Amino acid sequence: MKLASFSTPEGPSFGVVRDQSVYDLRKRLDGCHADLKSLIAAGDLARAQRVTDDEHGDYPLAEVVLEPVIPNPQQIFCVGLNYAEHVRETNRETTEQPVIFMRLPASQVGAGQPMLRPRESAQFDYEGEIAVIIGRGGRRIAEADAWAHIAGYSCYNDGSIRDWQRHTGQWGPGKNFWRTGAFGPWMVTSDEIEPSALMTLVTRLNGQEVQRATTDMLIHGIAKQVAYLSTFTPLFPGDVIVTGTPGGVGAKRNPPLFMKAGDRVEVEVDRIGTLVNPIADEV
Amino acid sequence: MKLASFSTPEGPSFGVVRDQSVYDLRKRLDGCHADLKSLIAAGDLARAQRVTDDEHGDYPLAEVVLEPVIPNPQQIFCVGLNYAEHVRETNRETTEQPVIFMRLPASQVGAGQPMLRPRESAQFDYEGEIAVIIGRGGRRIAEADAWAHIAGYSCYNDGSIRDWQRHTGQWGPGKNFWRTGAFGPWMVTSDEIEPSALMTLVTRLNGQEVQRATTDMLIHGIAKQVAYLSTFTPLFPGDVIVTGTPGGVGAKRNPPLFMKAGDRVEVEVDRIGTLVNPIADEV
Repeated sequence: MKLASFSTPEGPSFGVVRDQSVYDLRKRLDGCHADLKSLIAAGDLARAQRVTDDEHGDYPLAEVVLEPVIPNPQQIFCVGLNYAEHVRETNRETTEQPVIFMRLPASQVGAGQPMLRPRESAQFDYEGEIAVIIGRGGRRIAEADAWAHIAGYSCYNDGSIRDWQRHTGQWGPGKNFWRTGAFGPWMVTSDEIEPSALMTLVTRLNGQEVQRATTDMLIHGIAKQVAYLSTFTPLFPGDVIVTGTPGGVGAKRNPPLFMKAGDRVEVEVDRIGTLVNPIADEV
Repeated sequence: MKLASFSTPEGPSFGVVRDQSVYDLRKRLDGCHADLKSLIAAGDLARAQRVTDDEHGDYPLAEVVLEPVIPNPQQIFCVGLNYAEHVRETNRETTEQPVIFMRLPASQVGAGQPMLRPRESAQFDYEGEIAVIIGRGGRRIAEADAWAHIAGYSCYNDGSIRDWQRHTGQWGPGKNFWRTGAFGPWMVTSDEIEPSALMTLVTRLNGQEVQRATTDMLIHGIAKQVAYLSTFTPLFPGDVIVTGTPGGVGAKRNPPLFMKAGDRVEVEVDRIGTLVNPIADEV
């Protein structure tokens, strides 16, 4: 099942995407859940599934504005330096524990919405990644149990302002400019993607492939990420883990390849779909 | 005016602290605001002030459980390496821009509640700091305008698990163990503390002074912090900026001085009050 958050002229909602149609769960579940995070927290996915027994959805997919899959996560963790080729191109070292930094909800847009290059920098870089959405929360989750805590998977573009990322040793400012990241187009629920599934991640800029990797290349795998994070903090339903970007980022190319207004960036994950965003200058 | 978040057997609430009495604003404002963040967002402080015209509060201060001043900030930013003595003791360099990392709401407790040493580490360190609470949100706020965006000030203990902070170059995991930080006991509204006010910060462990500084020693002052942060992200009402810790942290002493169960740590700011927390082992 594909679950998405979206807006219509009536306001924000969330629902199931099937074929090219959207089933509005806020309406169909009688306002029982305020948003997708709340549906996930309630574990009410079977009820969501049943609405698609109905032959007709509520809107054509093309007519809604897709929002970040979870517009309001309590916590968004990103894993850095998690593919060997990316570690090499940045001249850094692999670490025994995953490199963790955070994004803020305001730094995200949904599929189709412009990712914004701020006026402060021309170093706007892409980072294609696979996102994990937490279903059942927990603390000190064992690696073997991690899969049972995952509600689903999505595509993520961890858009980065490179010069601001390097102002100091802490990367947060360059990773959190307003509307520089993208999360979507939907999540595919974990009943459709088996634990340790091999997924292929491809990033394209203006149609040219710039990154490619498979999940067996992750240095710190998804189960370890869940275990590590939940050792220090409780994970909550709707939390997001952005699992790392492969080699090929724009800043490490010669010459560097940064994104500019009019560009079109795609993050495709074979089991999920394709996250497409235009680039625009922030005005 | 002193504003606090607290719990009683009836549940969470927020209110005004005057003398040793708490005026319950959730009750007295007819449920108009769900929490202190919502009151601040509505700019309804004058109405809050008026409830204290009443001679009697609703509870003795000693009978409520103080919660983090803002239990649910959308964003919590911490400034690292922001006093020269602390930069020196860590053998790091001063940076032109402030070092920014983030804390998560789950990492905080209120005054009087135990700060928890996790079973994963014995390196539990104190960091006394002054916290700024954002009132009016905004983006790209000029330094000269920053003061008008501040709702008030509080004490903060940026409790840190040092070995986890150094797992990689990114400090997040060591700064976000569950209930390792403290925020309180209340905020003093900014009408009582003039822009650039000189405040004195003192940290004590078991009654012994371990840190002391004044706000004129901040490398990146409060107005600059507001300006820098709001350049990359919108600031929202109730957001928290933890402004940096002075020299004297436990990890850099010889021998190191870490906190353990039974200890009592205090962060005092002369214009605000004293944040006192016992230390306990997480069970």
